[in-house]
Amino acid sequence: MNTVAVLGLGIMGGGMAANLLKAGFPLNVYNRTAAKTAPLAALGARVAPTPREAAQGASVIIAMVGDDAASQAVWLGEHGALGGASPGAVLVECSTLSLEWVQALAAHAAERGLAFLDAPVTGSKDAAAGGTLRLLVGGDAAALECARPALSVISQEIIHFGPNGAGATMKLINNLMGAVQTAALAEGLALAERAGLDMAQVAGLIRSGAPGSPIVQSKLGAMLSHSYADTNFALRWMHKDATYALRAADAHGVPMPTLAAARELYRMARNLGLDTADFAAVFEALRHHP
Amino acid sequence: MNTVAVLGLGIMGGGMAANLLKAGFPLNVYNRTAAKTAPLAALGARVAPTPREAAQGASVIIAMVGDDAASQAVWLGEHGALGGASPGAVLVECSTLSLEWVQALAAHAAERGLAFLDAPVTGSKDAAAGGTLRLLVGGDAAALECARPALSVISQEIIHFGPNGAGATMKLINNLMGAVQTAALAEGLALAERAGLDMAQVAGLIRSGAPGSPIVQSKLGAMLSHSYADTNFALRWMHKDATYALRAADAHGVPMPTLAAARELYRMARNLGLDTADFAAVFEALRHHP
Amino acid sequence: MNTVAVLGLGIMGGGMAANLLKAGFPLNVYNRTAAKTAPLAALGARVAPTPREAAQGASVIIAMVGDDAASQAVWLGEHGALGGASPGAVLVECSTLSLEWVQALAAHAAERGLAFLDAPVTGSKDAAAGGTLRLLVGGDAAALECARPALSVISQEIIHFGPNGAGATMKLINNLMGAVQTAALAEGLALAERAGLDMAQVAGLIRSGAPGSPIVQSKLGAMLSHSYADTNFALRWMHKDATYALRAADAHGVPMPTLAAARELYRMARNLGLDTADFAAVFEALRHHP
Amino acid sequence: MNTVAVLGLGIMGGGMAANLLKAGFPLNVYNRTAAKTAPLAALGARVAPTPREAAQGASVIIAMVGDDAASQAVWLGEHGALGGASPGAVLVECSTLSLEWVQALAAHAAERGLAFLDAPVTGSKDAAAGGTLRLLVGGDAAALECARPALSVISQEIIHFGPNGAGATMKLINNLMGAVQTAALAEGLALAERAGLDMAQVAGLIRSGAPGSPIVQSKLGAMLSHSYADTNFALRWMHKDATYALRAADAHGVPMPTLAAARELYRMARNLGLDTADFAAVFEALRHHP
Repeated sequence: MNTVAVLGLGIMGGGMAANLLKAGFPLNVYNRTAAKTAPLAALGARVAPTPREAAQGASVIIAMVGDDAASQAVWLGEHGALGGASPGAVLVECSTLSLEWVQALAAHAAERGLAFLDAPVTGSKDAAAGGTLRLLVGGDAAALECARPALSVISQEIIHFGPNGAGATMKLINNLMGAVQTAALAEGLALAERAGLDMAQVAGLIRSGAPGSPIVQSKLGAMLSHSYADTNFALRWMHKDATYALRAADAHGVPMPTLAAARELYRMARNLGLDTADFAAVFEALRHHP
Repeated sequence: MNTVAVLGLGIMGGGMAANLLKAGFPLNVYNRTAAKTAPLAALGARVAPTPREAAQGASVIIAMVGDDAASQAVWLGEHGALGGASPGAVLVECSTLSLEWVQALAAHAAERGLAFLDAPVTGSKDAAAGGTLRLLVGGDAAALECARPALSVISQEIIHFGPNGAGATMKLINNLMGAVQTAALAEGLALAERAGLDMAQVAGLIRSGAPGSPIVQSKLGAMLSHSYADTNFALRWMHKDATYALRAADAHGVPMPTLAAARELYRMARNLGLDTADFAAVFEALRHHP
Repeated sequence: MNTVAVLGLGIMGGGMAANLLKAGFPLNVYNRTAAKTAPLAALGARVAPTPREAAQGASVIIAMVGDDAASQAVWLGEHGALGGASPGAVLVECSTLSLEWVQALAAHAAERGLAFLDAPVTGSKDAAAGGTLRLLVGGDAAALECARPALSVISQEIIHFGPNGAGATMKLINNLMGAVQTAALAEGLALAERAGLDMAQVAGLIRSGAPGSPIVQSKLGAMLSHSYADTNFALRWMHKDATYALRAADAHGVPMPTLAAARELYRMARNLGLDTADFAAVFEALRHHP
Repeated sequence: MNTVAVLGLGIMGGGMAANLLKAGFPLNVYNRTAAKTAPLAALGARVAPTPREAAQGASVIIAMVGDDAASQAVWLGEHGALGGASPGAVLVECSTLSLEWVQALAAHAAERGLAFLDAPVTGSKDAAAGGTLRLLVGGDAAALECARPALSVISQEIIHFGPNGAGATMKLINNLMGAVQTAALAEGLALAERAGLDMAQVAGLIRSGAPGSPIVQSKLGAMLSHSYADTNFALRWMHKDATYALRAADAHGVPMPTLAAARELYRMARNLGLDTADFAAVFEALRHHP
């Protein structure tokens, strides 16, 4: 089996790496803070001190990091993975990033003759742990075939949306809808609270009604209890995704007034110190702060 | 069986009336434009020339009209139903109305010693025809029990949310979420279109993903085909509900920046002449108009 | 000289009443809280215990109160001024109110054969004290001529904008622009602060530059010092005017996305307990609240 | 006198170049489309075929272009000015650009040991022609002194706001306020139109009232006549500046809900094909489009 590299071992990347090891892939791993590498080393991963060394000898190099800056560091930084990638390797960027950066990264890869896929994922930490993520892929079909054996281990479904950027765009569309739906849920629940409705009844109706999407259903509990410590997806990441989606809208000239308003609400929540809380905490931005 | 009255025989009120007749209730009906009364007369309804006459002798008087102005006319107009209601009758307002007006109407009813329920419905024309609506009820529990035999015929679930206004408030919360989710869907699809994604693939992912609520699922088709003639719920009504929800937010001092932005987008769509199109047509407000 | 009545003796109404007395008009005054009547009694005003009694015998009856509810109470309440007005009296509503209510009030006056002017004012407490307000008048030209001698005493300019509602509409347009300009100033200054610019330099440029309107110039100081206790116009009143302007936009079907966003920001500020602060305090809604 | 270079000879850059020639500076000029260089050649300018050649031998190199992409091309493109600049030259970027790009450009200059000033201007084409612009400068004070003799010729006031980025930030603050004020003016006038007010009266009140800033005063005429062909500042540039301001807000974590809403309105106007119209045309986005 060919060697795979995983760069970034947070909740998502860690789950992906563990599944690759379980499936028998020789695995190089890298993480900015070394502490998170220990459990994977224990499972047989080779821990590399830099992204470049992790990339060396790998035929598929997967990154799973927080934002454009982290992606830039891991691929193009001083000891970045792009400098270590072997000819024929396929680079797979699974992070949710701006369209602008994904396209710049694709161009950097092309300059070096390397294949590149943008392949952000949908699914939570459970899906990462269980290998049941969905991959939204943009890039060359042949490159996808090369990477498919490894990618199949971390996902239950791989959807090829088109050329580079298509996967990133689809992911931003998905997340912008989630960001807005959660903001609207917060606005609705804030009205219910102030009107003195029975919140369990309200939650029941929303859950089973026309606006009862999976994301709405999953955020009702945290909002009703005003407790956001069990972070499924941090507010600062949802803010980031909304921001990247607005930049994609810039690039394509699409008005997004509803998302624009919701993004500002997430930013208000950031001003309340809720960056690392679950993004359901956007609810708090609507309440009294005396 | 006690006599029931139905005021307003549009798609929703017409379905409700038909079910009451099928269940054997003696039924008085009124509609502003007389043409719509014929099918119900054929089923055995007594057609009244005014709301007041429809109300006379009825123990449950149900209104199902478009907006505050229509509700005001049917209850308090020159030949309004309030003037015809017998002592002991229960007034049931099933329309989606502003909290302000519902509370004013409740006060008018109380002045005359009449029981009043705000009981807006969720569910489409199919649910109205099939008797499977949900009723979101605000008002006195005893009054609800009096009306229950009739209301059970038109609904599969009756949820008592609290005193007068509670049903109206819950309905506005439900619809504001629907209005915002649909606006966000439109913004996402507009980006997908301009980015040149395969729209069927995009729709598939949204449908089965985190933002895939029933309302999102039901609006994808119309947006993808840009055809809104099969009006399930007219854009002007969704604009109205968003507006009433913002007024409820005014009354309770709740910020609703996301809804406020979405409401303006619906208003932009109204400026395009889309009032009577299905509200999925909000999508058109985001597109080029050269 | 004919008797004039002034209902509502806040900062604005008090100044108007004092000027009428100075000009020699016999003056009846009413205020909800009696304490504010003392200075005017000392100047020769007849203090009435109810609006109705204040209105009796007056040929011009001027109201200057906070919002629709206060206007409704003073004109149509149990001892309201409409019940005391003599035939031939001209009612002048100087408060900034919703278009909806102004038109309803005009209809109430017409029912009783009384002339009615909506005549909201522009200008601050200094202009009220100095008799240099501007009156934006809607209503019948002949009625305006009847009231002109009294109105000339409180204003330096009387502009007749059209039939009833025209003055109210113009005032809401004026104030919506002020509400939005102040919100935008706050957003700009928040960026300047976080970017570490020299705030005095920033203020200097804004003051003398393209966006340097009188309202912007007058709000810079409070924002730079973050002190809003010297209330020129309370935040809750600006929030109210923005809300009334949005309702006028509802009535006329005009999209107002910018105002809608600004209004929500004022509401966020209300949630911070800033209702009675000067409306420049909207700035605080943009800052960290740790 | 030292040689100066001007890159970009649009309305603004052309006026600046003419003034430098009149003051006796030896001048190199470059423009992407060569046609615009002829009038300046006639005045004695040396026309360079590339930015690099224009920069050679100049002690002050001034760029005045449309956006980040144009700035990037002129400084860092294949024959960019950075490659031609002599040691000791001061680079002066007068365009209104994103903070992100200005800081990147400053870093590029620093790498090569070149002094860099961000020095965007306020003032219209008349001010460019008359040498009465204002320069908002960020960068090293010593570099500013080197460039001052040339910059004094094109401006009546040079304000040093701090280190690199400070001038760019101040300019974005200025323009965001202008973008929002103009959007709010449009919303107010749209209400006035639909309410049937006398538009000349409305304009008079706004012009002389609290919201009557220079930018508001200058946009009233175009909106009242619905004619935007006399482009003082194109709508696409105002959209760009609003977008760059929002990106500066991203970088600093400042909520800007009002600007965000206004920016979307400008984008709606772009969808109507109004890119090259004066930005007062944002008014059209609020009107019926049947």
